[in-house]
Amino acid sequence: MIDLYTASAPNGYKISIALEEFGLLYKVKRVNISEGEQFKPEFLALNPNAKIPVIVDNETGQTVFESCAILLYLAEKTGKFMPKSVRGRWEVIQWLFFQAASIGPMLGQLGHFMRYAPEQIPYAIERYSKEAHRLFGILEERLEDRDFICSEYSIVDMAHFGWLYFAVKMGATDAEKYPRLITWHDRIISRPAVVTGLTVPEPSNFR
Amino acid sequence: MIDLYTASAPNGYKISIALEEFGLLYKVKRVNISEGEQFKPEFLALNPNAKIPVIVDNETGQTVFESCAILLYLAEKTGKFMPKSVRGRWEVIQWLFFQAASIGPMLGQLGHFMRYAPEQIPYAIERYSKEAHRLFGILEERLEDRDFICSEYSIVDMAHFGWLYFAVKMGATDAEKYPRLITWHDRIISRPAVVTGLTVPEPSNFR
Repeated sequence: MIDLYTASAPNGYKISIALEEFGLLYKVKRVNISEGEQFKPEFLALNPNAKIPVIVDNETGQTVFESCAILLYLAEKTGKFMPKSVRGRWEVIQWLFFQAASIGPMLGQLGHFMRYAPEQIPYAIERYSKEAHRLFGILEERLEDRDFICSEYSIVDMAHFGWLYFAVKMGATDAEKYPRLITWHDRIISRPAVVTGLTVPEPSNFR
Repeated sequence: MIDLYTASAPNGYKISIALEEFGLLYKVKRVNISEGEQFKPEFLALNPNAKIPVIVDNETGQTVFESCAILLYLAEKTGKFMPKSVRGRWEVIQWLFFQAASIGPMLGQLGHFMRYAPEQIPYAIERYSKEAHRLFGILEERLEDRDFICSEYSIVDMAHFGWLYFAVKMGATDAEKYPRLITWHDRIISRPAVVTGLTVPEPSNFR
């Protein structure tokens, strides 16, 4: 049994989707971000960075924070959703870091300046919007001759979907400019495990 | 022999330092960022994200982009600078993703708004400055009972040093607030491999 500390947010959905895909038993521990539960000492003991998601694998006693580290851990634990070849494995690891270092933080900044910042700052909105489109363009090109971001459906798709799901919801990815990215999004969201994962701990109220 | 595509920048230094530490033979391929060489087709074929560093391991034919993926690749290739225990290995992987997803992008944004943005935007400077200090605080606490970020000197220290080197240079980390972080920085920079790594492809002209 795995304990999943999570909230209805891009990085959280990555892991609820993954646990559903891997078919692992898990217990949901909802972390109420808006009430600051991530700053409580018992949560900081799990992740000093005060961010969801975190898992505790009760079978091994291992705690893992950072959503992409969790995905890698679960793939190694189960031997699933990770190519068997050496080259395939490194391809997945590279794109996992690309997601962690670019897609996640940059879409996060765009969301902040578009929706949450108390003042409208055109320079910042343009900066992150431009960067988001540059990143969408990379994925669009990547999907030219592939159904998935790497050679097969893998933890890399789960990692990207966590954020792209919100980008598509926001209307940031128009279908004319990014037809393959939208087709990929629709391909992922049609998976039953993904549909279920997106309800944990509850569906997002993001509109 | 490893080809290292790099420039004098935080993520580049991570890898020149690592190659020096690992004692691997490498050939430096300088990428002239200010002239946009990272957007040339031959570079985009190595990394579609148009970022240094990239390595090509001529022994295996493997190309790897994303600095933290490269660090992991080199650690697995050589069996060095990565703890042998399962728990130690996962600790390193988690903190590697923490560096990739938080330290790198957030210090990058702070640097942009402090030094490169064409207009001074107090809200953005405050946002990223606050986040940088939150992150420094996490490392400061982490170093309370450790000489290195994980249980021993590892690729995690190299990853963090790439950025912390510039933070210290900028004076962002004052010694009274972050005594352990400064001691850690001084401990790392006293290593001969680090001193040499910081000259590849040339010393930074950042002041």
